[in-house]
Amino acid sequence: MARFSMPSSSTSIRTARHLSPRLPTAPLPAITSRLFQMPLSLSSRSPKYTTLTTSHVSHIRKLVSSPSSVLSTLDGSATPDELLPHNLDWMGKYLGQSQVLVKPKTVKEVSQIVKWCNENDVAVVPQGGNTGLVGGSTPIHDELILSLSSLNSIRSFDPVSGVLTAEAGLILEQADSFLASKGFVFPLDLGAKGSCQIGGNVATNAGGLRLLRYGSLRGSVLGLEVVLPDGRIWDGLSGLRKNNTGYDLKQLFIGSEGSIGIITAISILCPSRSLSTNVALFSLPSYAACLEVFSQAKQHLGEIMSAFEMFDNTAYEAVKKQGGAKKVFEKEGNFYCLIETGGSSAEHDSEKLTSLFDTLLSSSLILDGVLAQDNAQVQSLWQIRELCPESLSKAGTAYKYDLSVPVEKMYEVVERMRAHLKERGLLGGKVKYVAGFGHMGDGNLHLNVVAEGNVFSKEIQGAIEPFVYELVGTHYCDTTEQKSDYNGSISAEHGLGSMKAPFISYSQADTSIDLMRRLKKLFDPKGIMNPHKFIL
Amino acid sequence: MARFSMPSSSTSIRTARHLSPRLPTAPLPAITSRLFQMPLSLSSRSPKYTTLTTSHVSHIRKLVSSPSSVLSTLDGSATPDELLPHNLDWMGKYLGQSQVLVKPKTVKEVSQIVKWCNENDVAVVPQGGNTGLVGGSTPIHDELILSLSSLNSIRSFDPVSGVLTAEAGLILEQADSFLASKGFVFPLDLGAKGSCQIGGNVATNAGGLRLLRYGSLRGSVLGLEVVLPDGRIWDGLSGLRKNNTGYDLKQLFIGSEGSIGIITAISILCPSRSLSTNVALFSLPSYAACLEVFSQAKQHLGEIMSAFEMFDNTAYEAVKKQGGAKKVFEKEGNFYCLIETGGSSAEHDSEKLTSLFDTLLSSSLILDGVLAQDNAQVQSLWQIRELCPESLSKAGTAYKYDLSVPVEKMYEVVERMRAHLKERGLLGGKVKYVAGFGHMGDGNLHLNVVAEGNVFSKEIQGAIEPFVYELVGTHYCDTTEQKSDYNGSISAEHGLGSMKAPFISYSQADTSIDLMRRLKKLFDPKGIMNPHKFIL
Repeated sequence: MARFSMPSSSTSIRTARHLSPRLPTAPLPAITSRLFQMPLSLSSRSPKYTTLTTSHVSHIRKLVSSPSSVLSTLDGSATPDELLPHNLDWMGKYLGQSQVLVKPKTVKEVSQIVKWCNENDVAVVPQGGNTGLVGGSTPIHDELILSLSSLNSIRSFDPVSGVLTAEAGLILEQADSFLASKGFVFPLDLGAKGSCQIGGNVATNAGGLRLLRYGSLRGSVLGLEVVLPDGRIWDGLSGLRKNNTGYDLKQLFIGSEGSIGIITAISILCPSRSLSTNVALFSLPSYAACLEVFSQAKQHLGEIMSAFEMFDNTAYEAVKKQGGAKKVFEKEGNFYCLIETGGSSAEHDSEKLTSLFDTLLSSSLILDGVLAQDNAQVQSLWQIRELCPESLSKAGTAYKYDLSVPVEKMYEVVERMRAHLKERGLLGGKVKYVAGFGHMGDGNLHLNVVAEGNVFSKEIQGAIEPFVYELVGTHYCDTTEQKSDYNGSISAEHGLGSMKAPFISYSQADTSIDLMRRLKKLFDPKGIMNPHKFIL
Repeated sequence: MARFSMPSSSTSIRTARHLSPRLPTAPLPAITSRLFQMPLSLSSRSPKYTTLTTSHVSHIRKLVSSPSSVLSTLDGSATPDELLPHNLDWMGKYLGQSQVLVKPKTVKEVSQIVKWCNENDVAVVPQGGNTGLVGGSTPIHDELILSLSSLNSIRSFDPVSGVLTAEAGLILEQADSFLASKGFVFPLDLGAKGSCQIGGNVATNAGGLRLLRYGSLRGSVLGLEVVLPDGRIWDGLSGLRKNNTGYDLKQLFIGSEGSIGIITAISILCPSRSLSTNVALFSLPSYAACLEVFSQAKQHLGEIMSAFEMFDNTAYEAVKKQGGAKKVFEKEGNFYCLIETGGSSAEHDSEKLTSLFDTLLSSSLILDGVLAQDNAQVQSLWQIRELCPESLSKAGTAYKYDLSVPVEKMYEVVERMRAHLKERGLLGGKVKYVAGFGHMGDGNLHLNVVAEGNVFSKEIQGAIEPFVYELVGTHYCDTTEQKSDYNGSISAEHGLGSMKAPFISYSQADTSIDLMRRLKKLFDPKGIMNPHKFIL
């Protein structure tokens, strides 16, 4: 890409051709030992739920076409080890005790299983790729696990409208690869794309890396097929962009975390894949510089900016330590910003980027910058950002918080957490460091507190929570409101799950919680769906 | 704009400088005489609702700060003529009999009035700009009318995030003008912008002219303030792009047409105003040519295409007859397409447009084309499209249908309606013509059947309905489904109101309708909110 002629200056935006073509994809960490020592204060099991027996397992097996769709330690059709990946969450923080895993192959099978569970007071945990970070997709006690992984076919794709209809268990990356072959793109992308499933993405209203450009799933998802808690199939699939005929029921299921039904298929509007993609990564001296670069990028790139991500040096050092970033910068900084553009004209996009770079180079905003030269380098630069969460998890025990904060003040939250943990004598001691990264363009901060060792500690958790929630969210308690300086959200995109369900009043007023409880009751009067989570 | 050098050919894209700078804005038609003779089969009044008396009016007056906020024919504070614009819908098709109009000035006043109505079984019709086309914002019988027009201030605007928080009664055009002065744009635009209110826009999930670019309100609206049917104020305002803490309650109110609460304020994400705007209008020989131009426009314009509108020659002739279009084309056609682009670089946008025009000129797809040279011409070209609905209304008695249909087959619906009315001996007789126009980019067709005279006729309506609904929507009736060739929606953006409420089963399955009825009951157990409409 010779058209980016850079001045020979120590502050230069260099090509990224010295980067390795593609860094090896690191497997998901299998941290199974941590939680056993973690004193989680989760709801106790309600006696209203049936305890499953071998005779129940035999009955469930009759509801599915293939006997191997039911795996249980009760009748010896599975070992505890085989159920472990379904009982344990991605972080190794939440461990359920389920003895029955069902993997239905058709919507009808899902319907029959759920109907039977409802009639027999059996609690059900719907499970997608189990990549969530708030303990939402694993059982708390002995709930039946209903995995969508065998329900994963593409039902239809219309290249005129770009509408894809596919089943819940389809892996996000597979959906996107299929679309790429047709010249389209899935309007959601996230680090866990190789494992997460599109049904789970919709059930948790996942945000991720493309929200800045394509908006939230609430705009892209055109229709859903859902098995309701009584087993009825709600056919809300649709290829229409506009349909104002009643309440938009699908919106209730988007982000409902399996609490009022199981999403079995989705219709989603997929944009054309950009003909030209550029990725640049900058090192910067301060968060103030990140803000100014963000503002300049919006001005110069306009409609072609498709992502604006930020990570701090603490996160970057963790990535380097895990081997996820070779020598990238001549001058490293306290902060890093990744900018992606996607447009229909490579020439126009380059000109817009050059104009941005010229402005950045003539200012002291950036210390150094690299621009990807080909698709492999695009992947490499993205991977540095995408490896942040995983590298921090590998560096110790990571306490992860996903927060919505106005972008101007986003990094203040990280600094205040550091000061708080220092004051408590933890930072520099049991706590190694506090890192911040996230989707700056959306005001979405991922705050990671990384402690020594590999055991979650009640002391550290107690020092962080509810401090972090008090800091970020306005606390609605009975008649008073304790205003936060940020008026943010305690969960931007990860959801509530088991982790944040008890803290919902830091982001929702009493009236909201009352309405939510009544909605839950309306859809799931027996409370069998994903209990002990979300709305308590 | 000399850079668009056009070949001297009979097929040329000419500059639009011969257009008048801005066509006069026609006032909304005041067609008050029609409906009195229209035999509308609306629900009869339920005896459960209280009949208001002068003593009720005195009590309501105590709930508001200013006595002039209550206007009633019961106590002589208003004449029937003064209430007429609130009792009669925009088309002059639906006439209510309300004797009490309340215009609260604060959210607290709205809350107190609604609380009182709920306690006293008084039916309430929330009313915005009353520009709806399905009889959703006027009373059916003697419901109290609660107008939001005095609740219209801008509460805040954040130029960093682009988030506007404003009250429901703010006129859309005023909101957009305010934003324009800050370099931003309201992500919704529609013909009625000079009268409609942003609260009503959100309550009906209005679609309009910018949906292709900015998506639906479901993505743009970040938060709402709503007075619930029991009078409680639900504070769901938010400036956050991401907030996954429970069910997204605001989505239930978006498009709920006043059936479960009254929207009193909205927070909405407003994009930066495009630095460069271009509008071109083409005449084309066939709908097939429109489809091909749409496909070419998507390819050449990519991310800068902000609207793709279509109208047929019947609609265009009506606009010309009403004085809304001077001589625009050297060669007129059977169809017209309007393309708008909005981008951050005038030069790049022009190059993209030139590339599109070169392709179109070298094909036989278009007959003629004009390109606006300045903002006044942009307005003039837009106005031709925007005057379609009004001009057709003025040409006789217009029966209007708003349909979602896959774009490839969109115009088939117009042709089949013509054939159907011809077969019935109506087209060419009592029916003057059938016109089609709409938001082609969204698959949204506006079908207008224009009849002689100025009285709605049961015969003509009976010939159109339910034929048009059967044609477009799959009919879900009990155990069977009568599939439509289009699998469309009987209401793309206008909503259900009184007009389409009885036909909801042409677009929604039994399970959906059952869930909707239960939701209505949950929020509004006494059924005081906008009765006899939406979900029956």
